[in-house]
Amino acid sequence: MTDIRKRPRIGVIGGARPNMVSTQVAARVGELIAKAGAVLVCGGLGGVMEAAALGAKKAGGLTIGILPGGSPAEANPSIDVPVATGIGYARNAIVALNADALIAIDGEYGTLSEIAYGVIYGKTVIGLGTWDIRGIIQAQTPEEAVKLALGGRS
Amino acid sequence: MTDIRKRPRIGVIGGARPNMVSTQVAARVGELIAKAGAVLVCGGLGGVMEAAALGAKKAGGLTIGILPGGSPAEANPSIDVPVATGIGYARNAIVALNADALIAIDGEYGTLSEIAYGVIYGKTVIGLGTWDIRGIIQAQTPEEAVKLALGGRS
Amino acid sequence: MTDIRKRPRIGVIGGARPNMVSTQVAARVGELIAKAGAVLVCGGLGGVMEAAALGAKKAGGLTIGILPGGSPAEANPSIDVPVATGIGYARNAIVALNADALIAIDGEYGTLSEIAYGVIYGKTVIGLGTWDIRGIIQAQTPEEAVKLALGGRS
Amino acid sequence: MTDIRKRPRIGVIGGARPNMVSTQVAARVGELIAKAGAVLVCGGLGGVMEAAALGAKKAGGLTIGILPGGSPAEANPSIDVPVATGIGYARNAIVALNADALIAIDGEYGTLSEIAYGVIYGKTVIGLGTWDIRGIIQAQTPEEAVKLALGGRS
Repeated sequence: MTDIRKRPRIGVIGGARPNMVSTQVAARVGELIAKAGAVLVCGGLGGVMEAAALGAKKAGGLTIGILPGGSPAEANPSIDVPVATGIGYARNAIVALNADALIAIDGEYGTLSEIAYGVIYGKTVIGLGTWDIRGIIQAQTPEEAVKLALGGRS
Repeated sequence: MTDIRKRPRIGVIGGARPNMVSTQVAARVGELIAKAGAVLVCGGLGGVMEAAALGAKKAGGLTIGILPGGSPAEANPSIDVPVATGIGYARNAIVALNADALIAIDGEYGTLSEIAYGVIYGKTVIGLGTWDIRGIIQAQTPEEAVKLALGGRS
Repeated sequence: MTDIRKRPRIGVIGGARPNMVSTQVAARVGELIAKAGAVLVCGGLGGVMEAAALGAKKAGGLTIGILPGGSPAEANPSIDVPVATGIGYARNAIVALNADALIAIDGEYGTLSEIAYGVIYGKTVIGLGTWDIRGIIQAQTPEEAVKLALGGRS
Repeated sequence: MTDIRKRPRIGVIGGARPNMVSTQVAARVGELIAKAGAVLVCGGLGGVMEAAALGAKKAGGLTIGILPGGSPAEANPSIDVPVATGIGYARNAIVALNADALIAIDGEYGTLSEIAYGVIYGKTVIGLGTWDIRGIIQAQTPEEAVKLALGGRS
C-alpha cells in the first residue's frame, strides 16, 4: 500500500454559505487534519468545504473533493484531487464512503444527508455547531473534533 | 401525457424494521394514497415500504419501488414497477426525486437521508412518528398526512 | 407478485436523433412489445425512445422511462412511469438493469454504453441497424427482434 | 490551483484479466504517464488497472482509483487515492469524467462502456489492442498512446 493510502482520511461536511464563525472553525479543522497527517475529504465546493480545504493546504495537507457535477474544474482552488461524479446530490453518499470519520460544521439539508450516510456506513460522525440529532458526537472545539475523528478511524 | 402520468405520486419512506403500530400506519397511508388515485413511490424493500405498498395494492393502487440493488426481483411482492438502480444507498436520492411529496413513517438514518433529499429537492415532507427536525410537517394521523401530501403536489 | 410484475420487460435503446427508417422501426418494435403483453423500458427521452414508447402506447402497452435528469416531467409524453435519476449518463446502467432483454436501434455512444451494460448484466442484446460488435444478436426485422427478445427473458 | 491539480490526468481502462502482453503494455503506459508528470486515473481494481498503476508508482507517479464498491480498501495496492463509489458499474461513467484523455488496453464490455462514456464526454480515446470501433484513435505502442493522450488534454 502506498504512503498516501496509509494516512487516515477525515471528511469535513457543511454548508456552502456558513457564517464567519463557522468559516473560521472549518479552516481550523482543515489545518488540524493536515497537521495530524490525515487526508481531508470533502464535497469540493464552497463555504465550509472551501474553508477546510484552504486550511489544510496552508498546513501542507492533501485534499480530495468529491463533486456533484461533471467537471473537475468545479472544485475550489484548494482541492488537490477533484473527483467529478456527475450524479448530483447522490454524491453525498460517496463523500461519506470515503472518510474514516466525518466532522460536520454548520450545514443544512445536504449536510444532514451526509450525516445520515455517515451513520449508515458506520463512520464516526462528529458535530461542531451542526444538526443536534442522535448519532452525532458533539464537540466543542476544532481540536476536540479532530481528535475524536482520528480516534474513530475505521 | 398518459393517464398514469397525470396522477400525483406520493413517496412513503420509513424503516425496514418498524414496530406493529408503524406497520399499521404505513398500511393505512398506502391505502389512502391509492384511494385518492395517487401513485405510491417507495424504496421497494420491507418494513414500512412493504406495508404501505400492500395497503395501496389492496385498495387497487399502483406502486413503484426504487431499489438499491441490481435486481428488480428484490422488490417486495406488492410492488408493480420495481426499478433496480444498482447504486446502493445513493438510490435514496432517487426515491425523493420521484415523489411530489413524501410521508416519513418511523425510520432510522436511511429515512433521514431521504427526508434531507426531500427538502433539498423542494418536496413537501410530512412526518408520522418519525424524526423530529425542522423541515418536516408533523401529522397526527394517516388521513392528515395523505391530505397534506396531496396538497403539496409540486 | 402483481400482474404487472409478471410481464416481461423489454428495453429499447437507441439514438435521440434517428432517421425516418429507424423511427419507424422503433415505433413498430414498441407496438410489438405491447401486443406481446410485455412492458417497454427505455431512457424516456426523444428519438428512438419516444417512437418506441408511442408505438407501445398506441397498442395499449405500459412504458417506463429512466431519465438522466432530476425531473419526471422531462419524459416524453408516451411514458407512463417516468423515473428521474438525477445521475446523468450513469443512468444508462439502470436502463440495462431493468430490462430482461434489450433491443438496440440505430444509436451512437449512449446506445453503445447501454449495449455494453446489457452484456455485462447478462441480458440478451438484439440489434436492429445498430453497432455491429460481438455480443449483439443482429435481427433483420422488428418482428424478429421482439421474438428474440421475448425468448431471452432472464 | 494546487500543483497536483495542474497536472494532466490520463485514464487507463482495460480488462481485469489481461494476457501477459497487455499486462506489460499497461505497465509501460503507466510508467510513461508518470514520467510525463501526469496523474493516472483508473478503475482501481486488478488486471490492466493494477498493472498501469504499478507502472506509474514505480516511476514516482500519483494514481487515482475509482472503485465500484463501497470500500476504499478494495483498491489495488498501487492506488494512492482510492475513491469508493458504491454505485457498481455505473462508476464507469465517473472514470471517464475524471480523465483528460483515456487509453484503452485490451478489455471487454466494461472497457467498452468506458470508451463510450469517453466519447460522450468529449475526451480523446486512444486504443492499444482494444475494441476496434469508430471514435477510438488506435495507437501502435505505449509511447504513441501516451503522446496522443497528452496532446488531448481538454
